[in-house]
Amino acid sequence: MSNLVLRNRSRFRKRSKTGFWNTSVPPFDKAIKRLFGRVGGWAWVACIPLTLVILATWGVAAQAQDELTTADLQTTLDNIWVLIAAFLVIFMNAGFGMLETGFCRQKNAVNVLTKNLIVFALATLSFWFIGFSLMFGASGNGWVGWGSFFLGGPAEVYGLDSTAGLSKDTFFLFQAAFAGTAATIVSGAVAERIKLVDFIIFSVLLTAIAYPITGHWLWGGGWLAELGFHDFAGSTIVHSVGGWAALMGAAFLGPRMGKYTSEGQVSALPGHNLSIATLGCLILWLGWFGFNPGSQLAADLAVPYIAVTTNLAAAAGGVAATATSWALSGKPDLSMTINGILAGLVGVTAGCYVVGYAGAFWIGLVAGILVVFSVGFFDSIKIDDPVGATSVHLVCGIWGTLAVGLFANPNNFTQGGEGIAGLFYGGGIAQLGAQILGVLSIGLFTVVLSSIFWLILKSVLGLRVSAEEEMKGLDIGEHGMEAYSGFLKDTTDMTGVM
Amino acid sequence: MSNLVLRNRSRFRKRSKTGFWNTSVPPFDKAIKRLFGRVGGWAWVACIPLTLVILATWGVAAQAQDELTTADLQTTLDNIWVLIAAFLVIFMNAGFGMLETGFCRQKNAVNVLTKNLIVFALATLSFWFIGFSLMFGASGNGWVGWGSFFLGGPAEVYGLDSTAGLSKDTFFLFQAAFAGTAATIVSGAVAERIKLVDFIIFSVLLTAIAYPITGHWLWGGGWLAELGFHDFAGSTIVHSVGGWAALMGAAFLGPRMGKYTSEGQVSALPGHNLSIATLGCLILWLGWFGFNPGSQLAADLAVPYIAVTTNLAAAAGGVAATATSWALSGKPDLSMTINGILAGLVGVTAGCYVVGYAGAFWIGLVAGILVVFSVGFFDSIKIDDPVGATSVHLVCGIWGTLAVGLFANPNNFTQGGEGIAGLFYGGGIAQLGAQILGVLSIGLFTVVLSSIFWLILKSVLGLRVSAEEEMKGLDIGEHGMEAYSGFLKDTTDMTGVM
Amino acid sequence: MSNLVLRNRSRFRKRSKTGFWNTSVPPFDKAIKRLFGRVGGWAWVACIPLTLVILATWGVAAQAQDELTTADLQTTLDNIWVLIAAFLVIFMNAGFGMLETGFCRQKNAVNVLTKNLIVFALATLSFWFIGFSLMFGASGNGWVGWGSFFLGGPAEVYGLDSTAGLSKDTFFLFQAAFAGTAATIVSGAVAERIKLVDFIIFSVLLTAIAYPITGHWLWGGGWLAELGFHDFAGSTIVHSVGGWAALMGAAFLGPRMGKYTSEGQVSALPGHNLSIATLGCLILWLGWFGFNPGSQLAADLAVPYIAVTTNLAAAAGGVAATATSWALSGKPDLSMTINGILAGLVGVTAGCYVVGYAGAFWIGLVAGILVVFSVGFFDSIKIDDPVGATSVHLVCGIWGTLAVGLFANPNNFTQGGEGIAGLFYGGGIAQLGAQILGVLSIGLFTVVLSSIFWLILKSVLGLRVSAEEEMKGLDIGEHGMEAYSGFLKDTTDMTGVM
Repeated sequence: MSNLVLRNRSRFRKRSKTGFWNTSVPPFDKAIKRLFGRVGGWAWVACIPLTLVILATWGVAAQAQDELTTADLQTTLDNIWVLIAAFLVIFMNAGFGMLETGFCRQKNAVNVLTKNLIVFALATLSFWFIGFSLMFGASGNGWVGWGSFFLGGPAEVYGLDSTAGLSKDTFFLFQAAFAGTAATIVSGAVAERIKLVDFIIFSVLLTAIAYPITGHWLWGGGWLAELGFHDFAGSTIVHSVGGWAALMGAAFLGPRMGKYTSEGQVSALPGHNLSIATLGCLILWLGWFGFNPGSQLAADLAVPYIAVTTNLAAAAGGVAATATSWALSGKPDLSMTINGILAGLVGVTAGCYVVGYAGAFWIGLVAGILVVFSVGFFDSIKIDDPVGATSVHLVCGIWGTLAVGLFANPNNFTQGGEGIAGLFYGGGIAQLGAQILGVLSIGLFTVVLSSIFWLILKSVLGLRVSAEEEMKGLDIGEHGMEAYSGFLKDTTDMTGVM
Repeated sequence: MSNLVLRNRSRFRKRSKTGFWNTSVPPFDKAIKRLFGRVGGWAWVACIPLTLVILATWGVAAQAQDELTTADLQTTLDNIWVLIAAFLVIFMNAGFGMLETGFCRQKNAVNVLTKNLIVFALATLSFWFIGFSLMFGASGNGWVGWGSFFLGGPAEVYGLDSTAGLSKDTFFLFQAAFAGTAATIVSGAVAERIKLVDFIIFSVLLTAIAYPITGHWLWGGGWLAELGFHDFAGSTIVHSVGGWAALMGAAFLGPRMGKYTSEGQVSALPGHNLSIATLGCLILWLGWFGFNPGSQLAADLAVPYIAVTTNLAAAAGGVAATATSWALSGKPDLSMTINGILAGLVGVTAGCYVVGYAGAFWIGLVAGILVVFSVGFFDSIKIDDPVGATSVHLVCGIWGTLAVGLFANPNNFTQGGEGIAGLFYGGGIAQLGAQILGVLSIGLFTVVLSSIFWLILKSVLGLRVSAEEEMKGLDIGEHGMEAYSGFLKDTTDMTGVM
Repeated sequence: MSNLVLRNRSRFRKRSKTGFWNTSVPPFDKAIKRLFGRVGGWAWVACIPLTLVILATWGVAAQAQDELTTADLQTTLDNIWVLIAAFLVIFMNAGFGMLETGFCRQKNAVNVLTKNLIVFALATLSFWFIGFSLMFGASGNGWVGWGSFFLGGPAEVYGLDSTAGLSKDTFFLFQAAFAGTAATIVSGAVAERIKLVDFIIFSVLLTAIAYPITGHWLWGGGWLAELGFHDFAGSTIVHSVGGWAALMGAAFLGPRMGKYTSEGQVSALPGHNLSIATLGCLILWLGWFGFNPGSQLAADLAVPYIAVTTNLAAAAGGVAATATSWALSGKPDLSMTINGILAGLVGVTAGCYVVGYAGAFWIGLVAGILVVFSVGFFDSIKIDDPVGATSVHLVCGIWGTLAVGLFANPNNFTQGGEGIAGLFYGGGIAQLGAQILGVLSIGLFTVVLSSIFWLILKSVLGLRVSAEEEMKGLDIGEHGMEAYSGFLKDTTDMTGVM
């Protein structure tokens, strides 16, 4: 905001689409004179009523000439809603940051925090530079998009309509937030042993190249869209892409020291701060209300519907994972409650728009059970994923994508408008086939491309910190600092004070 | 979002209410053939302009036939706003989680976190199953609602209008978030000694049965609504209901070991992490901007008015509690600043719509003073509430509800439209009488029903963990894990590194 | 919400602007009789259809008489969006709280938390009492505003239009949140040695008097607005004002014990909790999406544009500060990544509306580099600022304000509508001159007035806690409590349990 006069101009808002009210700034030297010719006396106050009359008349005239239509308002409302959804998705970086840091050991906390803080900055810049064009550029083909880089073109260059719907800015910010999510997923799986520089470079490559290409296949209107593959908010496009990249990273890195003993036993290496991990889970839950309902890319009554299916799946996933871990180990495991909620959320991400309430519930329930067994499975094949990112995002991302082919319900909110019916709702095997094809093709591409990235990084820079650094913690080795410096040291002499 | 074509369809949004644009998904095998018949060449590019023309024409035609009205837009705006408010209320779970965990001892942190994380999942499912119907089902009577369970009926079943106002989904999510709040309040008061399984079952019973019934009396259009009882956003309906249930829980459980010595002294048992407790308070402050202004259940200019009264009361409560604790103990007590802010927020929840700015200020101020003395009072009768939940939610919930009968101001924002005037604003004793009746009837019902729940649980499962488990901490006993595993242990050999 | 009947009234929303549907509350005694005369039988159910018919008819009639216009809807949308933006800005208190607490030492955590929690309560009350009138009161002159205190006047008193645009409530809450931000900035710089009472009084003086006066010069339509000074969201008006006040506070207080040794060395005194500091940074990043885009004070397509420029600058600042600290010290410093992101955000705050994407990138990049050197500079002149608040908010606030005179791009989103062109975009030196004048005049005024405040406080109360208290920590001295009471003490005997 600049001043009151500017604020009054908001009545001219409608005109601002074609060209703002054109005021010439008074030359600086004249303004100085005018000021000192005015602040000395009070005569200028007399001008206020006249100014107000002129402004008011002008406002009425402007409105008469150029009326605000309901379509204009719907456009504004679409943009404001999707923008708020983008903010919620961006806030998921705080969720992932707290979750992953809490699940890791204290000696690596600064490193995990740094990765989770810098990754959205990197994703923003690489998506601005190239990723957005590769994903949505309208001059591309079915395999990759192409268009003005640096967000330089008009809306049409990115497949948008410059007169209605989302503005280039809204769409870019929402999509950049999604790209950042894919990169953040990798962060957790490779934690506690990767060199920071490798993670940074990989994140740039993932968000600039790999993620946008497979994203284009569906959301850019590419070949998977043609085939009827359905992934509403990205169980596959975002979560399993991040999950595959994370899996390959964890595989090339190898497990953390001490995780798998030579006798074949698995050590727990528990996280150092479950308070912030739980906070992270609840921030992610909030963020998902931007992730899924925002993916409607418009403000309409589908948005609350998607919020309800999303929430039912999260609840079912949390309860199912808690019950499963309780049944298996005799005690309810908080980290499984956390991962169960996230599993339910990832699971319903693909189908949140086309499944019914019951479908969402079952998708979440199965995801919550799956995630518990998946964590055990990856340990059994000695893939060490400190935070369970592959179990949550890859396994449940695949499950959720396939579940569209099972649970898509033509009698749901959309009343069959999407034309999608799953196997359990009379749709036969066709949709399930499309879902399998999508999962396999995107998975294969991401595995191959991310493996190439990881292998180049490994051969050029080396992926892993030294054994000594890993033992002492990456915080000292990579950053020269501790996350909890002086903690409890100052207070040792205060025992008994309270 | 599915792809660009789908996004373009958003122009058909208005039609989507009666039935989406009906596309038939091409058979899967044909699509494969079409794909490989197309990606080989570039001829298909020629189809794009034609497609765009068809789409654009279709769009214009659709708009002409079926114009978007201002009433449609208001409905969309109502839903988007209340949905965002619901997200903020759901995020309050993170606030309660951090607040309660921080106010408890480290050895019980995992247990408190688990309770606060699972409780909204439980509330979602039990409210979806039965609670929503008992509270709002239009086939009920003045005492309890009834209607399709599992959110299965049309909007009218839940007292909504299917052509205007909030959609079934928006209203359900907002109300489920409120139900979850009532259950969360209990969590804090029974912390550090209750068995997890008892808390889980009690939360289900509270959100499925007890909370919806008393809620129906007012918000479901029941008998208290008939009598003119006013509780805009739930000082009584939500907060004191949670508070009464919490009080009975704390009473049946008895105090924590070591809280009250045999010599009649009270030990402080201070919380282990005031950083996250303060964060929790600030998250709750944010969440209340969904709780109170969202309770307008529509997007209009009352919403910012309610936000301002809410904020004034929070500020007054925080300052008053800080000053009171400073005056009483000679030092400003951070936990009292926290509880004072929450006290102000709980206090203004009933009257935020019908009181003036000054009324909101005084309600908050008194609540902030009340909460300090209330904490002392409950200790004096040996009701042990680790986080002060009964003082904040029960005592200030009652105060706020009664305050409507004192401070309701016919000259406030609503210009008397609500027809409510308190004792201090020329309204006589009538409104105060209605408020007292509401407080007493809902309190009595909740005390009786929650006592029955607690007593059944006590006799069947036992409410309390063993003395040994309580001493060692519930984290080890109930969960087999620590919240801060390895904390500072890794770094002891690093002294001097920095 | 009160009950279903009230909810149905939302259809009468449009009428509610001029006067709500006037219902008389039935006398309390009669209502009791009516209730017991009714709940006994079911005859009253028969009234429901009739009531619904009456309500429906009434609704249709009301709509016909008094149609909802698109201008009404735009007003509602403006208010809802700016209100949500206000919530995000208020949530920045949690961001500052976690950031500053995490950057300080454990022994002062309670004190830092208290300051950051109470400061928005104080700002709310003092801005309600007097600040809002001094800043926006329309009866003032070019130097200071004047008008009804306690938010008592109609919208026009505060320069608003009562028939369109932001309501008094929306505007007040948004502006109070901004005032709170200015005060919070001070908190960090004076941490770990200031008496709580001094901080409280200074915050009240700053938000009630100093901040509103300089704010009036621009945003209240005062003399700087006349001269063409441009500061869209407050790089100078908010951040450098807070920064100057912080700098004077830090200067009058002197450095913390042990910060600067007699041999001229600088000790690091590292923060005790970088997990919550990083969380704080990410909360602030979220909050800035309210701060900058909300400053459009309307819902239109400039809002997403501003969100994108804001985000690009944050990303560039974070990457630049990380790279700079990495290059200088050989290791990437997490606290510099944090401050770099904030530096980018502060820097783009002035120009987020009038610069292009590239301009935002360069502003953020330079801010990220500046902040690293600035921290070193203030240490070299022995100004001890524990969290780097002066480097982030003062130095980058000045940089961002001047950058408007360099990077303002007439070909940006606004298509020259603001009439501002910077030196690099063909605008010559005029705008840069106006920017320099704004920075200097506001800086001078704030330095003088805040020095007077600090000096009076110093002479009357003393600014600094005793050396013994500083050594032991302010938590014990000022508050008599610890932030992490009992931490790790309970668990020492559990070693080996897990």
